[in-house]
Amino acid sequence: MNKEQALSKFKELEEKLSHYRSILALVQWDMETGAPKQGIPYMASAMGTLSTEVFRITTSEEMGECLQVLTEDTNPADGDLRTMASLREAKRSYEQSKKIPEKLYSEFVVLTANAQSIWAEAKKTDNYSLYEPTLQRIIEINREFTKCYGYEEHPYDALLDLYEPGYTVRVLDPLFANLKDRTLSLLQRIQTSPNKPREDIFGQGFDKQKQKEFCFHLLPKLGFNLEAGVLGASAHPFATGISLRDVRITTRYIDDVRSSVLSVIHETGHALYEQGIDPELEGTFLRDGASMGIHESQSRFLENMVGRSKEFWSSLYPDLQRTFPSQLQQVSLEDFYRSLNIVEPSLIRTEADELTYNLHIMIRYELEKAMIQGEINAKDLPEIWNSKMKEYLGVVPPTNAEGVLQDIHWSFGEFGYFPSYTLGNLYSAQIYHVIQQKIPGFHQLLTEGNLLPIREWLREQIHQYGKIYTPGELIEKVSGEKLNADYLIQYFEEKFSKVYQLGQ
Amino acid sequence: MNKEQALSKFKELEEKLSHYRSILALVQWDMETGAPKQGIPYMASAMGTLSTEVFRITTSEEMGECLQVLTEDTNPADGDLRTMASLREAKRSYEQSKKIPEKLYSEFVVLTANAQSIWAEAKKTDNYSLYEPTLQRIIEINREFTKCYGYEEHPYDALLDLYEPGYTVRVLDPLFANLKDRTLSLLQRIQTSPNKPREDIFGQGFDKQKQKEFCFHLLPKLGFNLEAGVLGASAHPFATGISLRDVRITTRYIDDVRSSVLSVIHETGHALYEQGIDPELEGTFLRDGASMGIHESQSRFLENMVGRSKEFWSSLYPDLQRTFPSQLQQVSLEDFYRSLNIVEPSLIRTEADELTYNLHIMIRYELEKAMIQGEINAKDLPEIWNSKMKEYLGVVPPTNAEGVLQDIHWSFGEFGYFPSYTLGNLYSAQIYHVIQQKIPGFHQLLTEGNLLPIREWLREQIHQYGKIYTPGELIEKVSGEKLNADYLIQYFEEKFSKVYQLGQ
Repeated sequence: MNKEQALSKFKELEEKLSHYRSILALVQWDMETGAPKQGIPYMASAMGTLSTEVFRITTSEEMGECLQVLTEDTNPADGDLRTMASLREAKRSYEQSKKIPEKLYSEFVVLTANAQSIWAEAKKTDNYSLYEPTLQRIIEINREFTKCYGYEEHPYDALLDLYEPGYTVRVLDPLFANLKDRTLSLLQRIQTSPNKPREDIFGQGFDKQKQKEFCFHLLPKLGFNLEAGVLGASAHPFATGISLRDVRITTRYIDDVRSSVLSVIHETGHALYEQGIDPELEGTFLRDGASMGIHESQSRFLENMVGRSKEFWSSLYPDLQRTFPSQLQQVSLEDFYRSLNIVEPSLIRTEADELTYNLHIMIRYELEKAMIQGEINAKDLPEIWNSKMKEYLGVVPPTNAEGVLQDIHWSFGEFGYFPSYTLGNLYSAQIYHVIQQKIPGFHQLLTEGNLLPIREWLREQIHQYGKIYTPGELIEKVSGEKLNADYLIQYFEEKFSKVYQLGQ
Repeated sequence: MNKEQALSKFKELEEKLSHYRSILALVQWDMETGAPKQGIPYMASAMGTLSTEVFRITTSEEMGECLQVLTEDTNPADGDLRTMASLREAKRSYEQSKKIPEKLYSEFVVLTANAQSIWAEAKKTDNYSLYEPTLQRIIEINREFTKCYGYEEHPYDALLDLYEPGYTVRVLDPLFANLKDRTLSLLQRIQTSPNKPREDIFGQGFDKQKQKEFCFHLLPKLGFNLEAGVLGASAHPFATGISLRDVRITTRYIDDVRSSVLSVIHETGHALYEQGIDPELEGTFLRDGASMGIHESQSRFLENMVGRSKEFWSSLYPDLQRTFPSQLQQVSLEDFYRSLNIVEPSLIRTEADELTYNLHIMIRYELEKAMIQGEINAKDLPEIWNSKMKEYLGVVPPTNAEGVLQDIHWSFGEFGYFPSYTLGNLYSAQIYHVIQQKIPGFHQLLTEGNLLPIREWLREQIHQYGKIYTPGELIEKVSGEKLNADYLIQYFEEKFSKVYQLGQ
């Protein structure tokens, strides 16, 4: 096979894999938003079959040969940036996948596909023991994976690398320890402040159909293209890029309107990323975010820096008041804004305020490290979960449904993913710092409800590149420096000083 | 490869194909019910890739070898009924598929996947010329197909055989001619009857959300299992069996409540068939109806013999009255029933009454024969459609949207399918004749709204077998005789004599 033949074959395989991944993403979306209960096990098997085919192609001799021919003596000058990045990603997947025995991988796919409905049932009925054996097997397979992948210091590093290349326990431990200390210290100042936001606004009950209508009103204002996307509903809000012109998000409707609206803003942050990727990258390995953390930075930026700002709501709040007159007519924008930013240690990660959110992540990080290292097993989780909640947040879940069962991630088999959320927060604050300098009228645009120039800046600087750059390259390209936790801490201190009128 | 190895390999391929077909059915469902407009072309390509893989496996050397080893010297005594039937179906697909060049098939898959949104747009904007080139290519490919498949007398026979094995132009021409004559003669008696049903009942406007609620109220009463199925909405109602425990139907909501309710009953007839197939047939080639015509007999039976009967509505009509009090409180059951059975030549097949429905089919049958024989092309269709409408039904569509563009079928590439609708009507009347003898309290059960024993009888006699029997074998097994058009004509004459109080 010469280079030309190899490149043509490589592109053919790349497109086929992209097609199959789009289909798998759709089946997954359907399972969480529309599939009838009894139909799930069969579709889980069907997904297993197609995922196995994806795995087979990714690790095929054909792929190996293409990669060898195309990368053996190539230097960046030989190929265009896109092809080089595609090859880098394919090689990464090839080498990672080659390390996992096919049988183990198939078991994992079927196990995790079924795990999602078992988890949902266990959560619904607050019955952890229903889920425990499945989770235990997922943990064991992840331990196997770390042995297959290999690692230098900590087995968990092998999993972290899947989501955020370059990060290890050695990097995260001190970073998280620092963030924990400064968060707890700020939290204490907040909790002792006499100037607390109103707590009665969101407890009044908000009609779900009207919440839905408001969310659809919000989407185009956020820049979401509804002709290339869908908003649905599911137990746990999520975003999925089925293709660049089919990006789907969900929210959930509970009594409190904050939940649906902030989830929509958060997931739209993810969706704008996917909808903004250069169409030329459709069908390639680069049709994706740079990393989970960078992806999360986009959702966090939109949710927190935009969606929880007073400027943003100054144009939209009258619409929300009109939608819920009996609840909001008498509530001032200032009170509404401050209430959106209440800091209160609580049980559920996805409903947590900005500041204590990272504490939830740290708990999961600690537990995952221990599970992967074999120090704890599924049966130990509820007790340790509750004691960590006490230690970090000072609250203890009354049920497992509100505790260890709250997140879907482990059902997906995802270990090493949670730290990306906090990395996303760190990236988002660094990007926020830059964007205020680069778009001088930033706060004025927010006030006018004109988010288009902001979306365009993010598209230009970040979105369009898809997975061309690694996360480290990208954050340095955007901000001119490496990831720096100070931006998040400064942002928190400034913001909550205002919300809680803390003395300087 | 010995027989044991061949059987094991065959079952592995069969399951893989079944998984892929489930996934393709889901993607198709999504395209018609939820996908964002701009996402459709990419998913069409992805479907093309997976369909090509299905085609490749179906016609693979591996499959050919298995079939040869397993069928060369096997007589029915050697294998169980199920395996024999699976092999029969696999061999049929293998031999049919082998005749189609892979490249032509791929073109067809991508063409038809895109055709659906082009057709929808053309219909929406009443712009036939937008659709014409696509349709022309679909016709041409179907002509190619008939040459590949081969035929004895008429090229259209090759396509009829795909949906209803055993039926040919030579069989259908006189059958349809006879049905046409007796239908037109009964129609004339009806049109000259002075005793017409009320025509004002359904023109009053029925709230769509309330229609939807009533449809969901209806489903369990019809025996539809909502834990193993979904009701959605789409432009053209349809049913699809994604798996035996995931059977999805759609309806559409227009001002007239008849449309949504009768579509739900019709599609539920299809769904009960799929939900009633023996679970042992899951994952095999037999997870399907015996033929399109037999499938249609189940939907027609439920729609017409059950859903348009006075007995059925005697228990449900009070619920409908409560849902729409201002429209129906003053309408008697008798008037409602008679109105459900108004006979009136009209433009749209799916909204046609029972009697004139078959005339719509005959028009399509005539046109398809001529298209496949090369006598007419896409550009000729609108004019010929309108002249046939005049000839058969005495009405002419004012727009192509209400004429030649009304059906989605040709966008799917389906030629030879339409006659199955009338065959379904013929089968349904023959089954109705038998069921009244076999379930003596049949009409009483309907009156009580107790459809369960009827569903169980159909499941026992028809549904459970899936595709084990050919349609000819099945109708003879159920009724003790071959398909006989007299039952449908007798049923029409008896029913409409009552509805229109015709003199004997």
